[in-house]
Amino acid sequence: MPQGTLLYAQSGGVTAVINATAAAVIEAARARRVKVLAARNGILGALREELIDTSKAPAAAVRALALTPGGAFGSCRVKLKSLDVDRARYERLIAVLRAHDVRWFLYNGGNDSADTALKLSQLAAEFDYPLTCIGVPKTVDNDLAVTDCCPGFGSAAKYTAVSVREAALDVAAMADTSTRVFVYEAMGRHAGWLAAAAGLAAKTPDEAPQIILFPERAYDETAFLAHVERVVARVGWCVVVASEGIRTADGRFVADAGAGKDAFGHTQLGGVAAHLAGRVHDALGVKVHWALPDYLQRSARHIASRTDFEQAQAVGRKAVAYALDGRNATMPVIVRTSDSPYRWKLEAAPLQRIANREKKMPAGFIRSDGRGITAAARRYLEPLIRGEAYPPYRRDGLPAYVALGHALVPRKLAPWAEDPGRD
Amino acid sequence: MPQGTLLYAQSGGVTAVINATAAAVIEAARARRVKVLAARNGILGALREELIDTSKAPAAAVRALALTPGGAFGSCRVKLKSLDVDRARYERLIAVLRAHDVRWFLYNGGNDSADTALKLSQLAAEFDYPLTCIGVPKTVDNDLAVTDCCPGFGSAAKYTAVSVREAALDVAAMADTSTRVFVYEAMGRHAGWLAAAAGLAAKTPDEAPQIILFPERAYDETAFLAHVERVVARVGWCVVVASEGIRTADGRFVADAGAGKDAFGHTQLGGVAAHLAGRVHDALGVKVHWALPDYLQRSARHIASRTDFEQAQAVGRKAVAYALDGRNATMPVIVRTSDSPYRWKLEAAPLQRIANREKKMPAGFIRSDGRGITAAARRYLEPLIRGEAYPPYRRDGLPAYVALGHALVPRKLAPWAEDPGRD
Repeated sequence: MPQGTLLYAQSGGVTAVINATAAAVIEAARARRVKVLAARNGILGALREELIDTSKAPAAAVRALALTPGGAFGSCRVKLKSLDVDRARYERLIAVLRAHDVRWFLYNGGNDSADTALKLSQLAAEFDYPLTCIGVPKTVDNDLAVTDCCPGFGSAAKYTAVSVREAALDVAAMADTSTRVFVYEAMGRHAGWLAAAAGLAAKTPDEAPQIILFPERAYDETAFLAHVERVVARVGWCVVVASEGIRTADGRFVADAGAGKDAFGHTQLGGVAAHLAGRVHDALGVKVHWALPDYLQRSARHIASRTDFEQAQAVGRKAVAYALDGRNATMPVIVRTSDSPYRWKLEAAPLQRIANREKKMPAGFIRSDGRGITAAARRYLEPLIRGEAYPPYRRDGLPAYVALGHALVPRKLAPWAEDPGRD
Repeated sequence: MPQGTLLYAQSGGVTAVINATAAAVIEAARARRVKVLAARNGILGALREELIDTSKAPAAAVRALALTPGGAFGSCRVKLKSLDVDRARYERLIAVLRAHDVRWFLYNGGNDSADTALKLSQLAAEFDYPLTCIGVPKTVDNDLAVTDCCPGFGSAAKYTAVSVREAALDVAAMADTSTRVFVYEAMGRHAGWLAAAAGLAAKTPDEAPQIILFPERAYDETAFLAHVERVVARVGWCVVVASEGIRTADGRFVADAGAGKDAFGHTQLGGVAAHLAGRVHDALGVKVHWALPDYLQRSARHIASRTDFEQAQAVGRKAVAYALDGRNATMPVIVRTSDSPYRWKLEAAPLQRIANREKKMPAGFIRSDGRGITAAARRYLEPLIRGEAYPPYRRDGLPAYVALGHALVPRKLAPWAEDPGRD
């Protein structure tokens, strides 16, 4: 039985399956009789010494946790800066870890979190404090370097492809006398991964979505409107999927086009779909609807991908194994060994290669006209949305999601003096 | 074997389960060896003599149709007026029905469609044409008179409750350093049925949605913002569900508050959620997100309610039975005989009692403060979202939805001279 405590923390935007990773971490550590603390609200909980004792959670609750979306222990949007700039914070972290005999730190997040885990491992070495830091991959944006894909993305991708196909059936049925164009706004400020996933719903140019707008390609309004007009003429209706991050050639976000103040001086929120819908309505004179699923797309545990769910659990288990093996400053990453049949395995990658990097979508995934996906994109994406992993439902018709108690272990240190509070 | 043909048509906004009704109609008619034609794009197909021969569809395709959202034969938003005003159209309908020996007409829609079916039955009697007209209930708005609930509503309600619960888990996890208020816009121009369904996700005042805004209650911005502020102070975050149709005390739609033209003279589309999010942001100074699921909520077959699916099939089967029994100008309606355990049966109701009426949500379903649901609402709503009825999935990770061919039977009449074309 290894000596010491394992600390797990969630970071950044949560996903439909980050709790599957959390549950796998807890179960794998329990199997090795290692105590698991979870930081409340990510790294802030570690800084504040708000540490949740997961040993209070019954095994059944941990199993249910694996099927619950959101972030069970709370997450945060806080990025630690360089060791020079944020040295006091890193030192506070080391003090808290030391006070609770934490020998393994698992940080479940994206490239910022990988950077934090890496720097913490460096400072621990400097202080001669025996600590193994492991990054655990997670993000719906699929923009982590090295790993073939990110847990969280596949489920959001499945939600996107399924939702777009369903809405398209609605539009197709009504187009004769009602809505002719439907615009769906997908998450993706810098990379069009989720918009690309919508493309899985279309096997031919006439199937929806007929048009996808990527942040990787400059938005050209004239070409876009002409394309919509052609599709409506040919098919009778048109479904457009747009990344929230699309920009015009001069670099301005399309989402900002309608943002500002309304006639009453009230804040007018922007949005890509609302703007595009207005432009199509003006230019083509047809009825337009649009949807903005926002958080629904990343929390839709009810339509999680089985591939994604299994990978989320696998990286959690492997992270514990790497931690207990002392494989410091690494992350279990997904390596694809075959497209068809889809095969993958986990490998340890150095955090140095992951921290602060961003994986772009390959240029070869975007069709030459810039408004659709290629066969290569389909080969990559399809296995990631394969399979279902339904949560159980209660008699009230709702999923049996659980909330774990947040009982904190007793503090051993003075309060964190630099607590910024809520922003 | 009854002599003659049965004509089935879909009308108004489609739902996740209207095709389950269609499939049940086809299967029930086949069992009685009755030929089923389906009008293409609702009543317009009947007027245009665009009639689809469903006998070409293999039994397996009809079974798959039952699990496919949208409207397989096309729907339409066309309302026939009174017999006096639209007499030429009604006479054209009779001519088309007579030409194809249609003796049973099943119109699957809401209260407008019930009215059309009723008037058609009256004109047929006047012309001595032997025709049995049956209304088949359908609408996500749940606003049909007489029937306890409408097929289509339960699935949209389940989507709404599940989505709001999932998004709330996301918000709760992030609220410490990110989004504090989330606004979800539900369909419902005149009645807050779908917004009320979101309330099923909250068992206590601190669970999401903490605030629901109904079109049945005047929107009071000051009281709303104060309520949001109280919830954020108490819970740390707040989820708001707003009906698209909420209005201020002077009768203006809140959705129109931000609609108009932007700085470039482009159409600026309105929206309740976007407006509320902007107001909360301005007043409380917290980060706000909002979602507008639009058609996603009524086409989400992937999370259909089993109760809803079973009722959609049952009304289809019963409509055929009523038709062949000559129970003219009736509709199979759902009668609830027990809340717990939930029990229901079908009865024939005269279309006269349903046509052009609108069922309001009972005042007793809305909490006294106007921003939540009561125990009575919960008793009514809960059985309607109970159970799952998943579609099968293909190996590509998408539901195995089908498209039936639209092979038209040969025309026997001259083209419809008054065809308005697409609007």
